[in-house]
Amino acid sequence: MTDDPEMTVADLSARLVEFAAVRGWQPFHNPKNLAAALSVEAGELLEVFQWLTPEQAADVMAHPERAGRVRDEVADVLAYLLQFCAVLGVDPLVALAEKIERNGRRFPVPGA
Amino acid sequence: MTDDPEMTVADLSARLVEFAAVRGWQPFHNPKNLAAALSVEAGELLEVFQWLTPEQAADVMAHPERAGRVRDEVADVLAYLLQFCAVLGVDPLVALAEKIERNGRRFPVPGA
Amino acid sequence: MTDDPEMTVADLSARLVEFAAVRGWQPFHNPKNLAAALSVEAGELLEVFQWLTPEQAADVMAHPERAGRVRDEVADVLAYLLQFCAVLGVDPLVALAEKIERNGRRFPVPGA
Amino acid sequence: MTDDPEMTVADLSARLVEFAAVRGWQPFHNPKNLAAALSVEAGELLEVFQWLTPEQAADVMAHPERAGRVRDEVADVLAYLLQFCAVLGVDPLVALAEKIERNGRRFPVPGA
Repeated sequence: MTDDPEMTVADLSARLVEFAAVRGWQPFHNPKNLAAALSVEAGELLEVFQWLTPEQAADVMAHPERAGRVRDEVADVLAYLLQFCAVLGVDPLVALAEKIERNGRRFPVPGA
Repeated sequence: MTDDPEMTVADLSARLVEFAAVRGWQPFHNPKNLAAALSVEAGELLEVFQWLTPEQAADVMAHPERAGRVRDEVADVLAYLLQFCAVLGVDPLVALAEKIERNGRRFPVPGA
Repeated sequence: MTDDPEMTVADLSARLVEFAAVRGWQPFHNPKNLAAALSVEAGELLEVFQWLTPEQAADVMAHPERAGRVRDEVADVLAYLLQFCAVLGVDPLVALAEKIERNGRRFPVPGA
Repeated sequence: MTDDPEMTVADLSARLVEFAAVRGWQPFHNPKNLAAALSVEAGELLEVFQWLTPEQAADVMAHPERAGRVRDEVADVLAYLLQFCAVLGVDPLVALAEKIERNGRRFPVPGA
C-alpha cells in the first residue's frame, strides 16, 4: 500500500472537504445524505459482482473494464465515508482500531 | 485525525487480514461476499438516520447511544472495505486520490 | 400463491397506510425516509446470504431460523415498497407490467 | 390501484419467471444473486433522493425525469423481490400479511 505522505486518510479527507467547499456542496453534505450516498455507492460496488460466480468474482481484476469499475466504486465508498466522518467529527481509523480490539475479545482465536 | 503510526490504513488492513486468517475466515472472505457485507454494513449505518430529520441527523453525535452506533458502523464499513481491497490487491487511498483528480476535471470550480 | 381476496397488493397497501396513520407515523413516512428504509431492509435480507455458498443459499428455506428471517425481511421490503408507492401515488404493479413490456423489446428472445 | 386481473402479483411473478427462463437466465437467478440485485436496485431508488431536501423529495413525481426513474426503480425492486420469492417458494403477500399481524401486537395503537 502507498506510503506517499500526501496520500494518508487525513490528507485525502481534507482534500475532499475542500473540494466540496469550493463547489458550494456543503448544504447537501449533511450526515443523513452522506450516509445515503455511501449506501448507494456500496450498492454500485456490489452491482459489479451480482451475477458473477465466486470464481469469476475472485478474478475480477483480470478483467480491465470490471477492474476499473471496482477501483472507481471503492474510491466513491471511501470518499463518502471520509466526508461523513469529517462532518460528524468521527475518526474512522480510531473507530476501526477500537472495533478490532472489541472483536478480539468477542471472537477468541480457537485453540489459542 | 490520529497520527498514531500504528493506526494507518496499511496497518489496520494488515491487522484485519491477520485477524481473519487466524480464525480461519478466509474461505468466506471472497470479494463477492465482502462486497455484500460492505453493502449490508452501509445499510446499518443508514439505519441510524432513516427516521431522523436533517436537524436530528446533524446532532447525532450528541446522543450517546446513536453516537456509539455511528462509530461502530463506520468501523464495520471501513473494515469490510479494507478487507475487500486486500483480497483484490486494490489500494483504496490511491484509488481515491485518482478519483479526486478525475473529479477535479469533471467538476471545475465555478468562477475559477 | 394465495388468491385470498383480502391479500391483494391493494388491500395490504391500504392496511399498511392505516397502520401507520393510527400510530401517528405519517410524519416519518416521507418518500426519502421510506426509500432509505427500503434500502436498509433489502440489506437485511442480503445479510442472511452474505457468507453462504451458492449451494447453502439455494437451500436456505430448509433451515428454519434462516427461513423465518427470509420471510420476515421479504415482508419488510414489500411493506416499505408499498408505503413508498402509496405516498407518491405510484402503482407498483402497473410500473412492473410496463417494465416487463420495455424489457421484452430490450432483450429479444434468442432464436425467436 | 389497478384491478386488472392480468396485473396481479401472481401473474406478474409468473411472467418474470417465464421471461428469465426463455432467455436462459435461471443459472444466474439463484437466491443469493437475486438478494444482491434487489439490494442494488433499492440503492438505485434511494439514489434519486439522496441529495433532495424532504420537500423536494415529497414533490418528486412533479418532476418528469425523476418520476420516470422512480417508476423504473420501483419496478426493478418489485421484479427482483418477486423472482427471489419465486425461486425460494415464498409467498410475499402471505409473509406481509403475517408481519402486519405480528406488528399489530408489537405496536399497540396508543389510547386504543
